[in-house]
Amino acid sequence: MTYQALDSESVIDYLKDRSALEEVIPNRDDLVAKEVGDGNLNLVFIIESQGDPDQAVVLKQALPYLRVAGDSWPLTRERMRFETQALLKHNELAPGLVPLVYVSDEDMSLVVMEYLGNHRIMRQPLVERRKFPHFVDHISTFMARSLFFTSDLYLTGVEKKEFQAKFINPHMCKIQEDFVFTNPYMESAENQWNPEIDAEVQAVRANGELKLALAEMKESYMTHGQALIHSDLHTGSVMVNETDTRVIDPEFAFFGPMGFDVGAILENLVLNYLSHYAHTPDPDERAEYQAYLLEMVRDVWNEFARKFDAVWAENNCGELMPTKYWNFPAGEEIFAEFRRRYIQKILHDAAGHGGCKMLRRMMGIVNIWDITSIEDLQKRAVCERLAIKIGSRWVLERGKISSVDDLIRIVAEETKAA
Amino acid sequence: MTYQALDSESVIDYLKDRSALEEVIPNRDDLVAKEVGDGNLNLVFIIESQGDPDQAVVLKQALPYLRVAGDSWPLTRERMRFETQALLKHNELAPGLVPLVYVSDEDMSLVVMEYLGNHRIMRQPLVERRKFPHFVDHISTFMARSLFFTSDLYLTGVEKKEFQAKFINPHMCKIQEDFVFTNPYMESAENQWNPEIDAEVQAVRANGELKLALAEMKESYMTHGQALIHSDLHTGSVMVNETDTRVIDPEFAFFGPMGFDVGAILENLVLNYLSHYAHTPDPDERAEYQAYLLEMVRDVWNEFARKFDAVWAENNCGELMPTKYWNFPAGEEIFAEFRRRYIQKILHDAAGHGGCKMLRRMMGIVNIWDITSIEDLQKRAVCERLAIKIGSRWVLERGKISSVDDLIRIVAEETKAA
Repeated sequence: MTYQALDSESVIDYLKDRSALEEVIPNRDDLVAKEVGDGNLNLVFIIESQGDPDQAVVLKQALPYLRVAGDSWPLTRERMRFETQALLKHNELAPGLVPLVYVSDEDMSLVVMEYLGNHRIMRQPLVERRKFPHFVDHISTFMARSLFFTSDLYLTGVEKKEFQAKFINPHMCKIQEDFVFTNPYMESAENQWNPEIDAEVQAVRANGELKLALAEMKESYMTHGQALIHSDLHTGSVMVNETDTRVIDPEFAFFGPMGFDVGAILENLVLNYLSHYAHTPDPDERAEYQAYLLEMVRDVWNEFARKFDAVWAENNCGELMPTKYWNFPAGEEIFAEFRRRYIQKILHDAAGHGGCKMLRRMMGIVNIWDITSIEDLQKRAVCERLAIKIGSRWVLERGKISSVDDLIRIVAEETKAA
Repeated sequence: MTYQALDSESVIDYLKDRSALEEVIPNRDDLVAKEVGDGNLNLVFIIESQGDPDQAVVLKQALPYLRVAGDSWPLTRERMRFETQALLKHNELAPGLVPLVYVSDEDMSLVVMEYLGNHRIMRQPLVERRKFPHFVDHISTFMARSLFFTSDLYLTGVEKKEFQAKFINPHMCKIQEDFVFTNPYMESAENQWNPEIDAEVQAVRANGELKLALAEMKESYMTHGQALIHSDLHTGSVMVNETDTRVIDPEFAFFGPMGFDVGAILENLVLNYLSHYAHTPDPDERAEYQAYLLEMVRDVWNEFARKFDAVWAENNCGELMPTKYWNFPAGEEIFAEFRRRYIQKILHDAAGHGGCKMLRRMMGIVNIWDITSIEDLQKRAVCERLAIKIGSRWVLERGKISSVDDLIRIVAEETKAA
């Protein structure tokens, strides 16, 4: 089929013919569709049976341009291939933590997947101070398994490189290279920031040590092909409810540094923490929920590290390094030490990448709803100034971070000082 | 044409039909061929015109197996595609420092190139204490240009990743992963070492800190896609004469850490240095030539660093980082500092990778002629023990190396102590 962008009528014709949907929506004669995309790159339809609205799917189709920038930023539709490949791999490695895939159609640049009608994008409920008792367990499992099993720690060198070849994703990488690591920190027409923090933004853009560190993080992002990373794992890419967690939208997936994914989760929890200075005026309510969020930061990292180490110790069949290599007196302890140092390096990278991402949210093209939803610009600025201080320290001090408590201590020090 | 391994008769028929050779050997009716390959993976023929032996070419054809291991180690012939691609790129980036390519034939897994009859593989003349007054200039230019212009410092992110996709070279990488970074340091049937140094070899294999460091260098080799590296740049891959230098055999080329190439050159000069304890009994002659070799180590690094920095400052059009990013007060100095730190990191990697390669030559499958040509095993052991000490220190102390003088100091300290 030749590519054509679907609308809420043609999408119904398209789905009628898909026998792969037989089990999900047996009768596809009374479908209704609505377009719900709020992303920047894609059309997203929810299609349900009028007879039984519980029978529903989502269809996501890539547009040939970046929506937020209009037609001026052409993007290849191949990104849907990356998203589909990654979704299928994530379903294999972390079943139940991503949406099921029913149909993938490369010509049409689309994927049809499970409708998550009982889930919400995580950002808003975090602003509402909801709690998600299984999130820590779920997201740490997702990260530990999706990263470990696509790395040289589990795959043979040949398997890994052949898989990596399928995820050379230069146009999507370019978006992150520009909008996470470069443009926010220099003059660039698309940047946007709260005028109240203009002085702080300009100070970042002229801070030599920080600019060096940001450039080093960009180098890490561009060259460290460690594992298949999601590469956009903020709380807007996580759907949750009381019992369930799903990671969506892996269209940026490629072989990059593990710490970029881990840092994205930690950093988004911290930005949400800061947003409560405005969203939650009651000091007790605020303190209680902020403590909950920092506990999540601590637990996400510690559970990730524990699970990553365990899955490695149990499945050490990758090219780096065969168990036989550790077969010498004290070899078992030295192998454990190698794992410890490797995981420590992921924490350093998470601090560095998380710090970059915190900064870019304050002064780049894509800000963050947790904070932009604060209407009073002065109150918003309070959060943003703290984010700039914390993000800068995470980046600059990344090499000295010895545990997640150091990251939390930086948050505590800066918020106490404010 | 279907693949068939050529012999010294069929190779002549093959070349007769190549019109691309018109300028090099206009009359191809009286060709003679001899097979001269001493490599492990390929057939190599020299074919010349009987009427004018100055009219000659080399034909190199990949065999479908690793010669040194017989038929038991099957290898795909695609490696000739990598070699040809790399030779063409090197001709473009460092003209005159690699052989010219006349014919490349992917079906037949072969390349026809310039015959370097007036050049010698560098290893043996270094044992004979020859001097090559242009080598430092040539090899530093080759490395600075081939590495810089294939990195994110010069290419756009999209260009680099699309080029990288053509150099996913998993089977050749696997050889280096096994034989440089893994098997020498554990029990593996193909390992060979001088029985005189058995105690030292076993000590390396049980040295926890060293094994950790070697594993970290393997991680660097496997994941740090920094630039198109030659990936086998020892003095057996360099052909020289008084005036000219050519880098050959880039069949291992892929996107890896720059320090792996630089470290290979430095390390091979040091191993040659050590070999003179046996090859050059006269103390004055030895001291004079060893000083020459250490001066080469110093100059190769310093010239490489100087040229790399200069070519970067003059051609900063790569994705990492645009000149505009450095446009702030003090930005020029900070950009210079970024280059300094980046190049310093190449030196650390060169120390680490060079150290690994020094060690593997003492206890792995592929030893080194400079040293194996020492017939007296006790004299040979003197050199080998020093190589193990120096290589171990280069790996373990790599993070603290601040200039090439530190690498040379380690050589001096260990040889003085011996």
